Amino acid sequence: MKICVPATSANLGPGFDTLGLAISLYNQVIIKPSKFHSVSLKGEGANNPILKDNNMFIAIFNDFYHNLSNKKRHFRFEFTNDIPLSRGLGSSSAVIVSAIASAYAIEGIKIDKNKLLNLALAYESHPDNITPAVMGGFNVAAVKDNEVKYIKKNMPKSLKAVVVIPNRPISTQLARKALPYKYSKEDVTFNISHSSLLTAAFMSEDWKMLRIASQDQVHQKYRMKQMPELFDVQKTALKSGALMSTLSGSGSTLFSMAFNDDASRIEKELKKRFPHFKVLTRDFNNSGVTIEY
Amino acid sequence: MKICVPATSANLGPGFDTLGLAISLYNQVIIKPSKFHSVSLKGEGANNPILKDNNMFIAIFNDFYHNLSNKKRHFRFEFTNDIPLSRGLGSSSAVIVSAIASAYAIEGIKIDKNKLLNLALAYESHPDNITPAVMGGFNVAAVKDNEVKYIKKNMPKSLKAVVVIPNRPISTQLARKALPYKYSKEDVTFNISHSSLLTAAFMSEDWKMLRIASQDQVHQKYRMKQMPELFDVQKTALKSGALMSTLSGSGSTLFSMAFNDDASRIEKELKKRFPHFKVLTRDFNNSGVTIEY
Repeated sequence: MKICVPATSANLGPGFDTLGLAISLYNQVIIKPSKFHSVSLKGEGANNPILKDNNMFIAIFNDFYHNLSNKKRHFRFEFTNDIPLSRGLGSSSAVIVSAIASAYAIEGIKIDKNKLLNLALAYESHPDNITPAVMGGFNVAAVKDNEVKYIKKNMPKSLKAVVVIPNRPISTQLARKALPYKYSKEDVTFNISHSSLLTAAFMSEDWKMLRIASQDQVHQKYRMKQMPELFDVQKTALKSGALMSTLSGSGSTLFSMAFNDDASRIEKELKKRFPHFKVLTRDFNNSGVTIEY
Repeated sequence: MKICVPATSANLGPGFDTLGLAISLYNQVIIKPSKFHSVSLKGEGANNPILKDNNMFIAIFNDFYHNLSNKKRHFRFEFTNDIPLSRGLGSSSAVIVSAIASAYAIEGIKIDKNKLLNLALAYESHPDNITPAVMGGFNVAAVKDNEVKYIKKNMPKSLKAVVVIPNRPISTQLARKALPYKYSKEDVTFNISHSSLLTAAFMSEDWKMLRIASQDQVHQKYRMKQMPELFDVQKTALKSGALMSTLSGSGSTLFSMAFNDDASRIEKELKKRFPHFKVLTRDFNNSGVTIEY
């Protein structure tokens, strides 16, 4: 059985804890019945032996598997992870979503994607990464009474994601601590209007509007201060023709969006200016988590 | 020459200073060349003689007319105003928009609607009423470098506006003063997510989502405290089947939206419970200000 879950970029500038989209960069796990428990790990995190023994995927998988099954079975887990760890590309959400989906799938129980999403919410209180990880595409999400309410829009094939992944993380905890406790009415209005305009731009495919609509006053400048090079990355991407360029989640990745024809030029320019960072160009993903039996 | 401009309902709950839509309730002015200046006024404000002499429309009209024309001409202005004054239905925006449009029209100068909108912004710094007054439909707007950036979506014929207009105003100034100076991160996130979700719901015509998406933490509860009956109006509208029910602008009108089939029942119920308030059911307007030569 094979489970595949996409990377996600959340916030998209003003859409704090609200907006997110899925990128064609995947964590995959193959699970096979086995005489005894075993784990293999390729790709991101493979050089960290702790991840093999103290594995969040297996902990969540076991939680659900023991509730769903009364059989005692062992499995071999073969992970191939392309989503970098702690870089704001939704690696935690990918683990949570794929672990829950795997537990249901291995027992042959069909799980509705809405149910999967709401189960994932117990492990990750913000909906902005888990929603696109489950559903794919661009998503607007809010939480009401422990349920995710969301609207999804598929991303077109004419656009690409260009992500700049720094060689070190910004701590999520530190990044949250860097934010103000209180916000002025001006900042509140700024983000309400820009997040709403950005949403309308995605929904109506009005891509020219993205550059202005993706501006933020609530979190980016506070978080990016911890790695000031990110301001240069953002400037370079926009100057090279990106439609928008925003901190991915709480960083450290910078997410840019561009027309297909501009993406390779932007990638080249970013690689030249930031040779110590990883630069990837990817399609968007519209299917979210997939399960092959 | 005849100019007609629709009423507007702004904010729509969480979309503070951002979201607005146009309602088929109009201020109309007929302007005719005349030997001397004269004004007639029917409808809203007709019983207030000050509005005839100290008329904001004529002041703004003159500002523009004197700039556009080097002729000295006099006009007769015949106003028929159906938009109630100081009730949060965009009567000021209607005056600003129609006065500017009239000055251009009387000189036979075609004015682009985007230019009209940005000229209006000089008189009304928030874009949430002037944008639907000019453009019609549902609008998401933000201001960048003294220009309105907006995305418009036409409203379908299957929906109606039901407005409850109280017999007294909430002062806009008092209503703004009632708001907090600072907001917590929770309130900020709440409104960002709900305003974005509401935008996506309008853009994708996902009307079932409106009830949850139209919730607000930033302004309504503070303003409605000044007229506590409004909480009952809101509850009654929602209980009677409204899709959403929100304070219109800074009040005192309460705006509700409903499917055609439900609107008359909601109107009846609101009239029964609030006999001292005016209750109107109207279509939405998608054309904005119109000029007939």
